[in-house]
Amino acid sequence: MAINTQVTADHHAPAVTHTLAQFVATHPSKGWSDAVEHDALRTFLNWLGCAVGAAHHESTQAALAAVQMLEPAPQAGIAGLRARVDMASAAMINGISSHTFDFDDTHLKTIIHPAGPVASAAMALAEHLGSSGRELIDALVLGIDVSCRVGNCVYPEHYDRGWHITGTTGMLGAAAACSRLLKLDTHATQMALGIAASQPIGLREQFGTMTKPFHPGGAARAGLMSALLASKGFTASPRALEAPRGLIQVFSTKYDWSEIDKGLGQSFEISLNTFKPFACGIVIHPSIDACVQLKARGVKPEDIERLELRVHSLVLELTGKKEPQDGLQGKFSVYHGCCAGLIFGRAGEEEYADDIVTREDLQVLRRKIVAIVDDSIHEASADVTAHLHSGEQVHIRVEHAVGSLENPMTDALLEQKFHNLSDAVLGQAQTASLIKACWSLAAGDLKSLLQLIVPTSH
Amino acid sequence: MAINTQVTADHHAPAVTHTLAQFVATHPSKGWSDAVEHDALRTFLNWLGCAVGAAHHESTQAALAAVQMLEPAPQAGIAGLRARVDMASAAMINGISSHTFDFDDTHLKTIIHPAGPVASAAMALAEHLGSSGRELIDALVLGIDVSCRVGNCVYPEHYDRGWHITGTTGMLGAAAACSRLLKLDTHATQMALGIAASQPIGLREQFGTMTKPFHPGGAARAGLMSALLASKGFTASPRALEAPRGLIQVFSTKYDWSEIDKGLGQSFEISLNTFKPFACGIVIHPSIDACVQLKARGVKPEDIERLELRVHSLVLELTGKKEPQDGLQGKFSVYHGCCAGLIFGRAGEEEYADDIVTREDLQVLRRKIVAIVDDSIHEASADVTAHLHSGEQVHIRVEHAVGSLENPMTDALLEQKFHNLSDAVLGQAQTASLIKACWSLAAGDLKSLLQLIVPTSH
Repeated sequence: MAINTQVTADHHAPAVTHTLAQFVATHPSKGWSDAVEHDALRTFLNWLGCAVGAAHHESTQAALAAVQMLEPAPQAGIAGLRARVDMASAAMINGISSHTFDFDDTHLKTIIHPAGPVASAAMALAEHLGSSGRELIDALVLGIDVSCRVGNCVYPEHYDRGWHITGTTGMLGAAAACSRLLKLDTHATQMALGIAASQPIGLREQFGTMTKPFHPGGAARAGLMSALLASKGFTASPRALEAPRGLIQVFSTKYDWSEIDKGLGQSFEISLNTFKPFACGIVIHPSIDACVQLKARGVKPEDIERLELRVHSLVLELTGKKEPQDGLQGKFSVYHGCCAGLIFGRAGEEEYADDIVTREDLQVLRRKIVAIVDDSIHEASADVTAHLHSGEQVHIRVEHAVGSLENPMTDALLEQKFHNLSDAVLGQAQTASLIKACWSLAAGDLKSLLQLIVPTSH
Repeated sequence: MAINTQVTADHHAPAVTHTLAQFVATHPSKGWSDAVEHDALRTFLNWLGCAVGAAHHESTQAALAAVQMLEPAPQAGIAGLRARVDMASAAMINGISSHTFDFDDTHLKTIIHPAGPVASAAMALAEHLGSSGRELIDALVLGIDVSCRVGNCVYPEHYDRGWHITGTTGMLGAAAACSRLLKLDTHATQMALGIAASQPIGLREQFGTMTKPFHPGGAARAGLMSALLASKGFTASPRALEAPRGLIQVFSTKYDWSEIDKGLGQSFEISLNTFKPFACGIVIHPSIDACVQLKARGVKPEDIERLELRVHSLVLELTGKKEPQDGLQGKFSVYHGCCAGLIFGRAGEEEYADDIVTREDLQVLRRKIVAIVDDSIHEASADVTAHLHSGEQVHIRVEHAVGSLENPMTDALLEQKFHNLSDAVLGQAQTASLIKACWSLAAGDLKSLLQLIVPTSH
């Protein structure tokens, strides 16, 4: 089917709401390869680490305080906190915390952060239902497939228009995952997707405020409630996604229906998920990666006379802040990113603390960096040469930064990232146990994993 | 400011989020005429009657069953039911029930049903906070002004595109009303409007399903939670409504910013609210009104040989079903509407029951009706002539049907409508007390009114 970029309605759209509902309701448990299964565990692990890491952030705390005004029943846990709340609120709060550092997963084809809505809703409902780890992973894979396929259908026009696609497709993925956990049949799942279709959440205008992470949180909650409503017989249009006045044609002028069923059940969007090693915009990643490699090669900041950084013009356009004054400005400074890579060998959330960004040794090193625009270098690449006081030169060329689809973070790096986020919240020992529980979730016990997300001894 | 119907972004939009927030936070209590105050009481009364009337409807019951899965705290009441739930869920359920019969108020300029989102959120929060009746009415007037002004700004393009404008502006009105009840300052109210801006709820594709009344219910909940979040320091863009990637420019290509502050604080949109006397589409109302008048003139069904109905072509196009087979089809039959008017002198929800629509005397009368298209008659008018067996003719011309802005329902008719909706749920005596409590709400006690929405003796 051709891409329709017209405003005129398509009255002959295929029945994609039904197609997706049937897929979610009937696809076999672990109906995919071991590679896809492992990708799902990586997605879950990365999502959970991000959520634990932001447990004490002011946005998570403000959301929890608001929810507590509802005097919620203690149905489900919150990553990294002792408080328990009703499952819908738990879905919302975990969705908020997991996106707070902008450090969660990215489906690069659509820039959707798919786990926030889907995993947050699924884990909360699974806890309440007493689902198995296997059922949770099934729900995660299928839910993310729904969100991302709808995303593929409408990207980029929908996003360009100003919608925050993570929350405007995420409620569908969350509804799908929760329908699966509730074992709804095709019809009821179709109703759940339909109810969710009326609730897209998110505007790009909110970037830089707490409402940005609210988008996956709100989508998680909306999707979970849509599935609960459908399980009680609540009805929606069976063509809520594809009808001329359904979601997709209303919120996008581009829709490619073939994206919904192309390889459905054969290839899984969760395999296209990527994970950020560094807590900043993706465009800085190759430069940081190069500097981490310099440090690994033994280059010390004090040895450097001049650091020559050659990058695509876009990198400096977006992140050219030469003298960042605080952590937030640091996130828009390729200079600070390089310093963090060289001095700490990493650029996690901690390396974007205000007092790190303004620390004197970082300022000194920052001023040694000379950035040169070179549009022959791809925007996903970087070329760094350290000119040392000794006269020696050390050259690093990064074609695909770590964390890209071509050069994904290893499991060991994902574990290290999890520790960096979680150790301060749960303690190192408990964090190690939690990581182990994540890897064995599909065969293991969800209950014991859930006990580990709550701070105990620490 | 000119109307912009271009897709190109308006980067110089006035600060309407701030303007509305300041208005809501600082406008004096009862800062309007007695006429506006009376309009507010009429809006509240009509909304509450509709909510009570649908308490036992399957959509209300399904929503309540889903909410009960969250084991909610008994913070707030539900109109017409004994169950108590958390205030956010109460807002949602009352919003659903109040729109279930499509019998609630209409802001004709935008086809917004404004009370559903706003009153449902405000009453639930007011109960929890222990607010006075005065504070509740203030919140209602200001909240409805916010929803409808944003509606005026984007109507009709936004609605034409397929959004159900009641739920896509209603979350703003609900957030405004709840911010007022929480006594938030201008900044916090601006944040509440901003958080709500990311959560427009509603697609026209859902018409005919339970998700249609979910729209005002979901909007009520979203607005209430947005205000709670803002009260705890949660942040949003201060230009969430007007920025190029803010709500208004994202979900509409038409926006007339002058609609936001034209006469703000001087004229109030709640005064443009209308109330339906008949439980069907507005286009049938003049014909039913004429038949109710025939009955009042003493015309009996058995006296009639032929009933000549002259209407605009649109009336038959939309509601020309000659032989409706059930209640839902009856709503699309001007013929059934006329029969109900002549036989019962009314056309409330009861007159659209399946066994009324198919009753033999109605079928007999229906076949005596001859509808004639006459485009010289306005679509809001009707011309009816009863030709009697006696040879006599009785002619009724309705220029403006009862319930229109030009010929509003009297307070007595509103009370009768309330009784018709509520007597079966709360009993006649309690309904009479509840009506009285509504009229005296501004000076009276909200608590005693709230006791009357729950079935007791009945």
